[in-house]
Amino acid sequence: MSDFAQWMQAQGARTEAALQAALPDAGTVPHTLHEAMRYAALSGGKRVRPLLVHAAGEVSGAAPAACDAAACAVEMIHAYSLVHDDMPCMDDDDLRRGRPTVHKAYDEATALLVGDALQTQAFIVLAGAEPIAPAVRLQLVAELARASGSAGMAGGQAIDLQNVGRAMTRDALEAMHRMKTGALLRASVRMGALCGEIDAAGLAALDRYAAAVGLAFQVVDDILDVTADTATLGKTAGKDAAHDKPTYVSLMGLDAARELAGSLRAEAYEALAGFGGRAARLRDLADLIVLRTH
Amino acid sequence: MSDFAQWMQAQGARTEAALQAALPDAGTVPHTLHEAMRYAALSGGKRVRPLLVHAAGEVSGAAPAACDAAACAVEMIHAYSLVHDDMPCMDDDDLRRGRPTVHKAYDEATALLVGDALQTQAFIVLAGAEPIAPAVRLQLVAELARASGSAGMAGGQAIDLQNVGRAMTRDALEAMHRMKTGALLRASVRMGALCGEIDAAGLAALDRYAAAVGLAFQVVDDILDVTADTATLGKTAGKDAAHDKPTYVSLMGLDAARELAGSLRAEAYEALAGFGGRAARLRDLADLIVLRTH
Repeated sequence: MSDFAQWMQAQGARTEAALQAALPDAGTVPHTLHEAMRYAALSGGKRVRPLLVHAAGEVSGAAPAACDAAACAVEMIHAYSLVHDDMPCMDDDDLRRGRPTVHKAYDEATALLVGDALQTQAFIVLAGAEPIAPAVRLQLVAELARASGSAGMAGGQAIDLQNVGRAMTRDALEAMHRMKTGALLRASVRMGALCGEIDAAGLAALDRYAAAVGLAFQVVDDILDVTADTATLGKTAGKDAAHDKPTYVSLMGLDAARELAGSLRAEAYEALAGFGGRAARLRDLADLIVLRTH
Repeated sequence: MSDFAQWMQAQGARTEAALQAALPDAGTVPHTLHEAMRYAALSGGKRVRPLLVHAAGEVSGAAPAACDAAACAVEMIHAYSLVHDDMPCMDDDDLRRGRPTVHKAYDEATALLVGDALQTQAFIVLAGAEPIAPAVRLQLVAELARASGSAGMAGGQAIDLQNVGRAMTRDALEAMHRMKTGALLRASVRMGALCGEIDAAGLAALDRYAAAVGLAFQVVDDILDVTADTATLGKTAGKDAAHDKPTYVSLMGLDAARELAGSLRAEAYEALAGFGGRAARLRDLADLIVLRTH
């Protein structure tokens, strides 16, 4: 197993354990809500955001333990957004990662409350993240809130909904993805870095890395929707085209989209040049995101 | 007009202006989401929670301006909970304060995102609440998050849903209300106090006040559901009985419920004894909550 594969496995196990501890116990009232929150947040997934937190923590010299709260918080926000996105009034999906979605496994009211309470839990975890200094914890709260609110993830989701079946320019598509998925990926990188020591120039470089990787993530998603089969993908392939959703592939063609993904990966590498070996894991993650097959 | 009525009017106008400024501008993308967030949070209402923040701020010597962020944040959380509670999968209400609910005025997907983004906005506002010291802002975040998550408001909502049509003991009913409405009322009082100078004994006294007032709020709600007519109430009277919901009146009868409300008011007064004149507004608010007719 490569160094990176070992690191991924170790960080994955670490995040799983941290989430187990940071989520309310299913033995505590209200049992069903807590059980459903754990069902939503502990259902596997690639854990890309926690991995970005820990990889950025390596750049700023943050110990893995110092990054756990931020890793849990970004994953809880991601999990809440999936629960609400899957609901009938949004994407109306019955399956997520091969299991019934929360409103199918429980009911819609529970899914609504699970998403609501997972969002809150993210801020509970950050606010109580000892031994991180209170002023830094507040920075983490500010980063996460800005990235997930109406100027970030939730806002991108609203723009996406408005544009189903409409033509979008590449600029508009990019602006939408920057909010819908890019903002939280960027926050993951920034929050990991803030758990250690980082100066303004370092943060700016990480922002450039995160912007490139966030966009690459979406471009590759669009490519896989066209090129991969449903079994490899773990979700329905060809769904975007079937829903007449604007994608990078529909806007620029498959070859140009592949070229774009490659140049975004180069951009991400370039942004990390000043960090030397400390950014090894961030480089590995850029590779993972661009070269993945599902 | 009494001193208290003047104070209420002034604080109400102050909160309205602060909310106007703390909510994202409808001119900013995504327009519809921002417009709907403002529709939800600027629709009037009694603003009990912001009033409690400011009244508690008077106890701890916090200037009104220092309390604005906390007042906005608790009201945003309250507004988000109403938007989600009104949705078809929850209480399925078409009207709120005489206007179409958010999912009626817009659509369900927008209502879902409005609630999500209003919750996030509350934490954005607290995190950026200059000139409050970062460590205090973090305390405010922690108070608000704990009060509104699965051990507070969202958890109480889950318990309420589970118990529709079921018999509940008075203890269970009280535990549910302590979470569903009491926790956020208590957080309002504590957050207002934390915006100024308060010691542990002072906070403990305010907790006793908030516990009594929070419970009184619910007992009076249950009494009014039986005794007031729909026009006075501004919402459908007799709804709890029609839905076979356990209430204080159904559990203990109207007279005993009235007695309970009176003794809770006395308890609230008693808790404030050590504060003298500084707690005048908190006493006025206890009166308002117990003696209100709608």
